Parts: sequence; C-alpha cells; structure tokens
Amino acid sequence: MNTPATPFKPNPNLAPGPWLDAVTWNTQGLVAVIAQEFGSGDVLMMAWMSRDALLKTMQIGEAVYWSRSRQKLWHKGEESGHTQTVKDIRLDCDGDTILLVVDQKDSIACHTGEHSCFFLDWDAKASTWQKSLE
Amino acid sequence: MNTPATPFKPNPNLAPGPWLDAVTWNTQGLVAVIAQEFGSGDVLMMAWMSRDALLKTMQIGEAVYWSRSRQKLWHKGEESGHTQTVKDIRLDCDGDTILLVVDQKDSIACHTGEHSCFFLDWDAKASTWQKSLE
Repeated sequence: MNTPATPFKPNPNLAPGPWLDAVTWNTQGLVAVIAQEFGSGDVLMMAWMSRDALLKTMQIGEAVYWSRSRQKLWHKGEESGHTQTVKDIRLDCDGDTILLVVDQKDSIACHTGEHSCFFLDWDAKASTWQKSLE
Repeated sequence: MNTPATPFKPNPNLAPGPWLDAVTWNTQGLVAVIAQEFGSGDVLMMAWMSRDALLKTMQIGEAVYWSRSRQKLWHKGEESGHTQTVKDIRLDCDGDTILLVVDQKDSIACHTGEHSCFFLDWDAKASTWQKSLE
C-alpha cells in the first residue's frame, strides 16, 4: 500500500470536477483524512479537508487541510515548516475518508513536536493512556 | 509503531473510568477510529466508536464499532467472520482519534471483500479515482 504503481504528481491546472463530487462530503462539507508516512507506514495524524483543501492539495502536492478550530484552509507546515509532500492519495469504499501517503518533513507531524500524533499508548496495568517511549 | 512494547491484552473486568473520559467524544458521542494492520502497517478502514464500543473493544480484545447507519454496536466480523483482534490501541494528541492496530482475520477488512477499504487510487492522467491493482 505504500508503493503506489503511479507516483502522485501535483497538477497546478487541475479543476474541480466529477472526481471532487465522488467524495462523500459530510454535513459540514468535510472529508476525514488519514496521513500515513511513506516508507515507514506510520499513521501520523487525522485531519479534515474541504473541497478547496483537497483541490489545493492536488494542485500543489502538499497537504492542505481545513482547520475546524480556525475555520480556514491550513497548509500544513506553513508555520512550523513541517510540510507533508504527497506521495499517494486514496479514497475509501464509501468515499468519506481519504488516505494521504506523505513524506513528512523533519519526520515531525504533531504540533507537540512528536513524530506522530498517536503517541499515547494504552497501559493495561494502569488502565490509562501513557506517553509511548517509541 | 507496529511493535508495541507492551502487547495489548483484553480485560473482561475493565470498567468505565477516567481513561474513557480522556477521550474527546464529539457531539454525537463518538470518536474516530483508524484500523491499521499489524505487521504490514496497511491502513484498513476508518470507523467510529461510542463509549460502549470502546469499552467492549477493551474487554473482549476484538474491534467493536458504532454503526452510524444502523445506530447500534457493530462487532466487526459478526456476520462476515472478518474479525479484528486488537494488538495495540493508541490515542492522538487531542484525544479525538484512536489508532487501533489489529490482526485482520482472513486479511479482509472491507465489506466489498477487499483487503483494505482504501482501494481507490488517484489516477492523475484520467483525473479520477481508479480501483488499485494492488
């Protein structure tokens, strides 16, 4: 799954079209996006895209999300420098989730400075979530 | 990320507690869940869990989701046989997404019979989503 037959190439001239309507947008006009690291296969984060965000991502080849907290387009890394270069884009069976395979700049996806946002691991003995040592 | 230091073990006696409140439940009382295959690292599917679904998953060690279409608990594989045995559970930085690392029975996660729900790949030449040959 991490080695797409046809590597993704951005297309600055890509326009909205049936491909964009093929996505199942939720009532907020968003689609869930899972970012997975190319090569390692690590799941880095989950975020959301609007139609404009997905179009922009396709055009520039870097992940652009919709920030629900700031209610605007969020070009990932625009402030931190931790951009995500798209290697592959996949859509799931019912169209409501996108899998974005990316090269993660500096290997840091999380705003906390962690590699992945999923750094809290279940600790069965303590029945709680603990920061992973990985 | 695929080799947790402490392998997950189900706990039939686990009760609701602060660990369950640590999850950021959305307005529908749900949390997004990404299922990733243990070993391969393939992202299999995205689904949702309610509090009851997460508790049940922890108790039995198999993925139990909340079916939004059927509005009830959905023990994945209860009809198809394609159960998911939990190997690791992780929570993300803001608590609103869970990463479930699983052994996928029969290697089939999707209701279409595909290995992963993410079998539609972006075809840049045709500007459309095409079924992946992988």
